[in-house]
Amino acid sequence: MCQTKKIGRQTFALASPPIIIGHANVVGKKEGEGPLSDSFDLINPDTTFGESTWEKAERTMQKLALNKALSKAQITSADVDLLFAGDLLNQCISSGYAARDVGIPYFGLYGACSTMSESLSLAAMALDGGFGSCTAAVASSHFCTAERQYRTPLEYGGQRTPTAQWTATAAGCVILAKEGNGPRVTNVTIGRIQDKGVKDPSNMGAAMTWAAYDTISCHLKDTGRSSAYYDLIVTGDLGKLGHDLLLELFQQDGFDLSQNYDDCGCLLYDRENQDVHCGASGCGCSASVLTGYLLNGMKSGTWKRILFCATGALHSPTSLGQGDTIPGICHAVAIEM
Amino acid sequence: MCQTKKIGRQTFALASPPIIIGHANVVGKKEGEGPLSDSFDLINPDTTFGESTWEKAERTMQKLALNKALSKAQITSADVDLLFAGDLLNQCISSGYAARDVGIPYFGLYGACSTMSESLSLAAMALDGGFGSCTAAVASSHFCTAERQYRTPLEYGGQRTPTAQWTATAAGCVILAKEGNGPRVTNVTIGRIQDKGVKDPSNMGAAMTWAAYDTISCHLKDTGRSSAYYDLIVTGDLGKLGHDLLLELFQQDGFDLSQNYDDCGCLLYDRENQDVHCGASGCGCSASVLTGYLLNGMKSGTWKRILFCATGALHSPTSLGQGDTIPGICHAVAIEM
Repeated sequence: MCQTKKIGRQTFALASPPIIIGHANVVGKKEGEGPLSDSFDLINPDTTFGESTWEKAERTMQKLALNKALSKAQITSADVDLLFAGDLLNQCISSGYAARDVGIPYFGLYGACSTMSESLSLAAMALDGGFGSCTAAVASSHFCTAERQYRTPLEYGGQRTPTAQWTATAAGCVILAKEGNGPRVTNVTIGRIQDKGVKDPSNMGAAMTWAAYDTISCHLKDTGRSSAYYDLIVTGDLGKLGHDLLLELFQQDGFDLSQNYDDCGCLLYDRENQDVHCGASGCGCSASVLTGYLLNGMKSGTWKRILFCATGALHSPTSLGQGDTIPGICHAVAIEM
Repeated sequence: MCQTKKIGRQTFALASPPIIIGHANVVGKKEGEGPLSDSFDLINPDTTFGESTWEKAERTMQKLALNKALSKAQITSADVDLLFAGDLLNQCISSGYAARDVGIPYFGLYGACSTMSESLSLAAMALDGGFGSCTAAVASSHFCTAERQYRTPLEYGGQRTPTAQWTATAAGCVILAKEGNGPRVTNVTIGRIQDKGVKDPSNMGAAMTWAAYDTISCHLKDTGRSSAYYDLIVTGDLGKLGHDLLLELFQQDGFDLSQNYDDCGCLLYDRENQDVHCGASGCGCSASVLTGYLLNGMKSGTWKRILFCATGALHSPTSLGQGDTIPGICHAVAIEM
C-alpha cells in the first residue's frame, strides 16, 4: 500500500517526485512576435498550421507539441503509459482527436484555462502512485476557435473592452518519468472552486483571482512554507488586472508577493504594442509559458523553485445566459530542481 | 515509492483495492417508469428538479446524487479529499457548478458517456496511490439539455432514426474509501481511442463498440483472465445495435460473451414500450445503472465480479460539421466483492 501523501487540507507531497524529462510548445504568429519568442519550439507563420479549419489546426498543435516533447525526451509515444489532456472547445475535441491519432491511453480533462495545472497534477500523481513509468500532460487553446465559440465570429469584428484578454494560440506538453534528469514535481495543491459573483466574461481575471488566492494561500499553509520559499510563484492567466488584484489580496494578509510573483498572461505578449488589453488567456497561455520560458529558466539556473498555478473560469455562454456567475479554479504545482 | 501496478499494455492492478462505501443515483420521470425503477434513490416527477432551466436541473441532480451517496456512506463532503466529475454539456457546467456548491477539491473530466468509468478509475487510482482516504466519482446527463445542445431544440420535434438512443436524465455517484465494507475496485484498463470512420451521430452505438471491443479484449489479455472470470461484463451505452455488434466481434475471435454480457443502454428502459429506439445513452445511463442495479446486485449476491465498461463518443457538432468521424473510448473497471 502507498503511504498517505496528504499534508494539510488540499496538498499532496509526492513521495518520489516525478521528473520532467521533456517539454515542448507550439505557438502562432502573434505569440511568436512577443517577448518570449526565443522560448518556443515551433512558431507557425499563421494560425492555420496547414489545416483547413482552425479547429483542426488546434488539434495539430497538440500533436506537434506532444511529438516535439517526446523527441526532446528521446522516447516515442509507445513509451507513454497515460496521456492527460484538455482544451477549451466544446467536447474537448482538440484533445480527443489528437489523442486518437497518437494512440496513448487517454484521460480527457476539462479545467478551462487551469488545464495545464490539472493535467500536470494528475500526470504526476499517476506516476507517483505507481501507475506506469511515463506520463504526458497536454493543453492547448486557439484564438480563432475560442473567439467564435465563446464570443462572436471573427468576421463580426467585435470591439474588446479594456479588461478583456487575448486567447493564446498555443499548445504545451510536459513529459514526466520516474527516472531521468530534470526539474521535479514535488507537491500539488488541488483547488476548490471559488465564486465571488463576477458575471462579466470580459473580465475573467477578476473572476479567477479568488481561486488563485485561495489555492496559493492553502498551499503555503499546508506546506508550512513562506512565499519566499519559491523563487517564482506564477499564475496562469489572471492578466494585468488579476495580477494586481492578487498582490492586493496577499498584501491585506500581510504578505508581499511583489518580488517573486508573475502571471503567464502578463508575460506572453508585449501589452504596450500587441493590442492585447489586459494580457493573454487560454489553456495555451500557461502551457506555452511553462514549457518554454519557465522550464528553460529552471534548467539555466534562473529559478530553482517555482509554484505553477494555472487558473480557469468554469462558465459557459449558456450558464452566463441563464444568469449564472463565473466560478474560478486554480491548482498549484510545485516544481523544483 | 509505490510499486509499479501496470500489468500488460493498458491495465493497472490496484495494490490496495479501494472500497465502494457509498453509491447513489437520481433520475427523471421516464427512467423512473422503466424496468430498473426499484434501484433508484430518487425519482423526480418531472425533468426540472425544481429548477428554472434544464441546465440548472442537471447540476442539482449531481448534487442530489453526491449528497445521497455521502449520507448512505455516513460521511460528509468535508471527508472527501478529491472529487472527479464530468458531464456532456459544453464546458462541463453541470459538474463545475455542482462542485462549486459542495466545495470539494475538484478535477473536471470530459470523457463523454465514458465519464463514469473515467471518474471511477481516477478516483480509485488516486486512493490507491496514497492521495487521500476518500474520493468521489460523479457523472450526469439530461435528455433536455443534451437534445438542444447536440441536436435540435425539443420544440422542433425532430424525428429520430431507428438507430438513435435516448439520452438518460440521470446522475450517479460512487464514494470510494481506503477502509470500510463493500465491493472493491481491483483493476482498471484505460482506453485508447478507436475510430472506424462512423460519421452518423444517430448511430453512436456503432461508433463506440470498437472502443469497447478494444478495451475489453485488452483487459482480458493484460490480466490473463477468460471472459468467464466475470459474472457480468457490462458496457455503458452501446444500445441494442452496439450490443449485438460487440457480441459478433467477440464471436469472430472465438469468444462467446452471450451468457455474461449486457449493456446499461439496453437495461435502463423498456425498449418495447418506452419509445427509445436502440436504448439509453448519456453519462447518466451507465452512472445510474452502476450505482443502482449493478452495485445493489453485487451486494445482494447476484454477481461477485463485474467488469464495468462505460463507453464514450468524443465528437462534437462542430467536428461533425467539418467532416470528422466519431472517435470512441472505453475504460474498463473491475469491481469485485
